[in-house]
Amino acid sequence: MSGQPAGLGSVLVVGTGLIGTSVALALRGHGVTVMIADQDPGAVRLARELGAGEEWAPGGARVDLAVIAVPPQFVAQWLLDLQKTEAARFYTDVASVKALPIAQAAQLGCDMTTYVAGHPLAGRERSGPAAARADVFLGRSWAYCPGPETSGGAVAAVLSLIDLCGGNAVQVDPVVHDEAVALVSHAPHVAASAMAARLAGASETALGLAGPGVRDVTRVAGGDPGMWTAILSGNARPVAEILEAVADDLSTVAAALRAVSVDGAAIGRVTDLLTRGNAGQSRIPGKHGGPPRAYAVVQVLVGDRPGELARLFQVAKDAGVNIEDVRLEHTPGLPLGAADLYVQPEAAEVLAEALRAHGWHVP
Amino acid sequence: MSGQPAGLGSVLVVGTGLIGTSVALALRGHGVTVMIADQDPGAVRLARELGAGEEWAPGGARVDLAVIAVPPQFVAQWLLDLQKTEAARFYTDVASVKALPIAQAAQLGCDMTTYVAGHPLAGRERSGPAAARADVFLGRSWAYCPGPETSGGAVAAVLSLIDLCGGNAVQVDPVVHDEAVALVSHAPHVAASAMAARLAGASETALGLAGPGVRDVTRVAGGDPGMWTAILSGNARPVAEILEAVADDLSTVAAALRAVSVDGAAIGRVTDLLTRGNAGQSRIPGKHGGPPRAYAVVQVLVGDRPGELARLFQVAKDAGVNIEDVRLEHTPGLPLGAADLYVQPEAAEVLAEALRAHGWHVP
Repeated sequence: MSGQPAGLGSVLVVGTGLIGTSVALALRGHGVTVMIADQDPGAVRLARELGAGEEWAPGGARVDLAVIAVPPQFVAQWLLDLQKTEAARFYTDVASVKALPIAQAAQLGCDMTTYVAGHPLAGRERSGPAAARADVFLGRSWAYCPGPETSGGAVAAVLSLIDLCGGNAVQVDPVVHDEAVALVSHAPHVAASAMAARLAGASETALGLAGPGVRDVTRVAGGDPGMWTAILSGNARPVAEILEAVADDLSTVAAALRAVSVDGAAIGRVTDLLTRGNAGQSRIPGKHGGPPRAYAVVQVLVGDRPGELARLFQVAKDAGVNIEDVRLEHTPGLPLGAADLYVQPEAAEVLAEALRAHGWHVP
Repeated sequence: MSGQPAGLGSVLVVGTGLIGTSVALALRGHGVTVMIADQDPGAVRLARELGAGEEWAPGGARVDLAVIAVPPQFVAQWLLDLQKTEAARFYTDVASVKALPIAQAAQLGCDMTTYVAGHPLAGRERSGPAAARADVFLGRSWAYCPGPETSGGAVAAVLSLIDLCGGNAVQVDPVVHDEAVALVSHAPHVAASAMAARLAGASETALGLAGPGVRDVTRVAGGDPGMWTAILSGNARPVAEILEAVADDLSTVAAALRAVSVDGAAIGRVTDLLTRGNAGQSRIPGKHGGPPRAYAVVQVLVGDRPGELARLFQVAKDAGVNIEDVRLEHTPGLPLGAADLYVQPEAAEVLAEALRAHGWHVP
């Protein structure tokens, strides 16, 4: 994170879906003046009622930063249109792919000095403004991709945005970004969907025997098909390459299983994939994976009230503790849940003490 | 569950892995005399030190029930050997596939009147006796497959076992069982492994952008490759069929993504899979899926101490409430976690009151 989030007095958020509205709510929580726009008047109205800001009127006063929160294919055109009217001093976007909007923006002749592409690694299975929360970015990575022409002012504005939203800024090359998210987000989404699709015709008996395993494997398949189609088509080649490799492995295992009764050695190909799966799974940072980064976990009980988690992060910040990742275990409809806060080991006790001192229940 | 768990004074558990040792611990908690056996003397010693029971001496007194907790391929031979020496009045197993051991037992000439095949739908990413817990079966389905020759006494013995372990007995045909678990457990395991295998060579940048989504998709890929190879080869055809269908879908999506830049209509095939994934995911019962069974959730804070969850289930039982499913959100190394208890809606308040009356913290 940067130091002082200075210089963001006013922000325009274009696109009041889940991410756009969440950005607006987070900024409003810090007193930023937020204007909102969406091609769907109902979405703007709902976001406004949620406290996300006031409806934007084109041609009004120039804002400090415009956050373009539309599907990846439409980012560049919005950037061009906004720059034509000098709607903002600086511009960023939050699309899940980065090479495509950057290339399109250059092609359209956008001013690349005032634009920094960005991507907060946050999301929920739900979508739309009603699912927005100011705290979805807390402790999550937020990739940003300055180009050779990007001005220092534009970078500072985006870092301020990330800081105000509570994200962890990660600078990355756009092509590297797209290959990375293909691997850790886009292809896993399709794999989960392909497995979940098999359950569409499952018997009640089979569903009755379903446990936490299949629930976890398929959870992300609940995401919005239209939104994910746009993401996948915007990152087509990297995702296709991974899916081809996954399909190959599954076909190999299927063939080995078919051959097992006549060729005992075939089973070695099954063990091989499972062993490679072990190796890959253990590299994922966080709760269920191994510790490529050995974080300590501080668990704290939090209420399901707006702003509660934000207050918690403020306590952490005031104590000088950086929260690297967060995992929430809220049950819908219940007022209390557990938050697992991932911090550097030496910071765990500092954080626990600070939280207790502010009345939080840290078991 | 059956009524009184009568008639199980002594039980032999063959195989002190995770499931065998967990069964032994659960039975010991109810005062059952438990004998344990394993081909690995170290595993027996460890299970014994964990309080799972005393080492079995072949030729000793006949027990009421023998629980054969070995890989599916070895169940029938163990059954035959135990029956030859009249080691037990009744026999069951806990293997993840059911048609194979039943067919092999019949082929070997086992006495099919005293044997009921069984399968508790429980497991953890870890394996071995050290990972065993008396409470892994609480609220989980436990499939059992009586055949045409099975005696009433044998069925009663297995129902008593399931009851003592806190599971929910589900009678099912063995072939139906195997196709069901291929769909909701075995194929998802391979799909998770195939996705996780892609991460084995992932860059640090990619791993740094990993979030809860990919973590969930690949979590089960952490399971023991040897154990899972045995399970998959014992259920080869049903698993192969599903994997072939999943691989086909992934290949179709990959081809559509490759074609997207020249054939706009190709993207429809991506949306189609995502939409089918939505439909399948929504059918999974429980926390992250839709409600084919609309359970209510009672959340309670539990300590990470042996027997704590068992005491909780006893309170539920005394209050006349059946817990349909349970999901634990423990963080390793921390003393407190949240348990989500799934009950019929009309039982939720009864359970919450009963738990509070016994000193549990129900938010």
